[in-house]
Amino acid sequence: MELEEDKETIEKLEELGRMVQNQIEEGENPHIEKPVRSRSNVEYDEEEGVLTLGDSTSKRYFMNIGHARKFMQTMLIASKTKELIQEGRTASIRELYYQLKHTIPGLDENTLRDQDESDPVIVDLETTINALREQLHLITERKGALFGPITIRDQGDEINCLELGKSGLGIPAIVDDYEFVEHDADYVLVVETGAMVNRLVEEDYHKENDAIIVATQGQPSRGIRRLVKLFQTRLDLPIYVFTDGDPWGYYIYSVLKAGSMNLAFESSRLSTPEANLVGMTMEDINEYDLDNVTEQLKGKGPDTSGGPTKDFKRALDMKDYDWFADERWQKQLQLMVDKGVRIEQQALASQSLEFVANEYLPEKIEQGDFLP
Amino acid sequence: MELEEDKETIEKLEELGRMVQNQIEEGENPHIEKPVRSRSNVEYDEEEGVLTLGDSTSKRYFMNIGHARKFMQTMLIASKTKELIQEGRTASIRELYYQLKHTIPGLDENTLRDQDESDPVIVDLETTINALREQLHLITERKGALFGPITIRDQGDEINCLELGKSGLGIPAIVDDYEFVEHDADYVLVVETGAMVNRLVEEDYHKENDAIIVATQGQPSRGIRRLVKLFQTRLDLPIYVFTDGDPWGYYIYSVLKAGSMNLAFESSRLSTPEANLVGMTMEDINEYDLDNVTEQLKGKGPDTSGGPTKDFKRALDMKDYDWFADERWQKQLQLMVDKGVRIEQQALASQSLEFVANEYLPEKIEQGDFLP
Repeated sequence: MELEEDKETIEKLEELGRMVQNQIEEGENPHIEKPVRSRSNVEYDEEEGVLTLGDSTSKRYFMNIGHARKFMQTMLIASKTKELIQEGRTASIRELYYQLKHTIPGLDENTLRDQDESDPVIVDLETTINALREQLHLITERKGALFGPITIRDQGDEINCLELGKSGLGIPAIVDDYEFVEHDADYVLVVETGAMVNRLVEEDYHKENDAIIVATQGQPSRGIRRLVKLFQTRLDLPIYVFTDGDPWGYYIYSVLKAGSMNLAFESSRLSTPEANLVGMTMEDINEYDLDNVTEQLKGKGPDTSGGPTKDFKRALDMKDYDWFADERWQKQLQLMVDKGVRIEQQALASQSLEFVANEYLPEKIEQGDFLP
Repeated sequence: MELEEDKETIEKLEELGRMVQNQIEEGENPHIEKPVRSRSNVEYDEEEGVLTLGDSTSKRYFMNIGHARKFMQTMLIASKTKELIQEGRTASIRELYYQLKHTIPGLDENTLRDQDESDPVIVDLETTINALREQLHLITERKGALFGPITIRDQGDEINCLELGKSGLGIPAIVDDYEFVEHDADYVLVVETGAMVNRLVEEDYHKENDAIIVATQGQPSRGIRRLVKLFQTRLDLPIYVFTDGDPWGYYIYSVLKAGSMNLAFESSRLSTPEANLVGMTMEDINEYDLDNVTEQLKGKGPDTSGGPTKDFKRALDMKDYDWFADERWQKQLQLMVDKGVRIEQQALASQSLEFVANEYLPEKIEQGDFLP
């Protein structure tokens, strides 16, 4: 974390504290005001291309039997995170829970019963003062790996990510403090499965195509989402996403690109609207002769009694997303439902192991054959 | 993979092929003989300290309506893995499935219906010719991260793992080809949770204690298990395992140390009987004043009607493991059942964030306060 950002976050926390202090001094019922996070208050910002929170807010009062406990917890967490930032430490949300859990003197009551109590209050605090949990020095699980022609300064160490063999760099929860020293990359390839990344690294794809490869290993962590965003904003690199051709893979793309309903307030820092999908697409099945290696979609199609379920339902739900309104996506999702199949990245191995690295990806990227 | 090892594996595969060819030429019903993998044939080798397979074998015949399909699949997989080794490529078990899936000419029948068919046949082949899947160039998911005073040569790159910031080195599925160029480590600390590794790295534990830190992030992958084994055998480093104090954490330790029932044939290459557990222990709860931050075990205790369930049952099951016969483990597991609680690594944060790095671990390791 840069010192400047930490200062800003501390100011926000102190402002929250002063506000409550003023309320007390003026004899008001102490309260905080926070944005409503339910779906009714989530909007798609067409100009920015990301999900955001609307203007609805709600108040949480100290002198209210239904609010008092959560009010106390919000103050506790605000105070502890300020301490973390000042100490230059980070903590997991689990550690935060353990740090704050204690019996309130004079009462037979714990500050926190379990982590299910502290986690939502962290989100309350994030939205109230408009600071992400990473800015509050709270971290989530590490996940993913990175390969490619870029040198990153991390905690004073200069790491050349082209010299990490087939092991790669682990991607931590907080990456804002990464300094991109120099790079030689033409684009960033974000890949859903770890096995596909192994394949590409084994074929020297990152070296021969000057590509930074990021493995998300399923749904990307917050650290990965932020890192992709930083590659786009700081280095102006094109972002190509490579997932399985199925509702889950497209949802991963959707979250990387536009954000998620539940965490709409974070989209501006974690989402990359400039990203494009390079594959797998439904057209790939004919184009690359993959009919024999598709898999059936799970669930029931739209014409069955009771309507669509599982994969079919997810694909049709996505057709209604504003950011998939583009006709190419409408066609894509309809084609998936009509065919009733999914196609995995690794199905390209039915051509040959090296096919994905030597033909599929270079050709698609050369031709600009993307989904928006 | 060293060339020498690859040669050995190819010889084993060719021997299998020659054997079947001879059977055909001599008019026999072609068959292969493989060890029985059911629990009745799993033994604990007290001298080696690991689980191994016993002597029972079974035969799989080509001219047997119940065996023919699997026999064909075994031959297909043997042939394809030989090709992989010769090409110097690796493949995921998913890619292998896609590479081999095709319609048999003249029949309306696929070689493989789904991956559930190919995965067990891979294990059959591993046990039949006594070669691990990594030796067959088959890889599983990457997982975990590594930090510490060791320089590793990977694919020609020399990686100083003390200069990887808070990101760390990703641990790939195959690590046998790692060359340990030089190191300055006193021991290896294998840690269950990624968040605890973040804590230790943030406190510079690896630098101040000359420790190699390995994050397993839950149950360790095969790559992690093999890497820990290599640290022990090649570098003769002590291995200290640091898990949550609960049945799941102790099971992770058990698998690292002695292997697992299902994959008993791999123990000699993947298990490290020399490992010790540094924590969390049930005694830690009193010793470090953690009573307030324990969690209840899930399930019912042994004295309830119907007998123990869930966590209680797992703890009592482990008491029967031969490799937990040591009285210190017997006491430990009984204490867990009696107290009815579990204690997490991160609960140490209730003392202070730096407590685990500055006091808990160094004191325990200095005093040799381990479970065997």
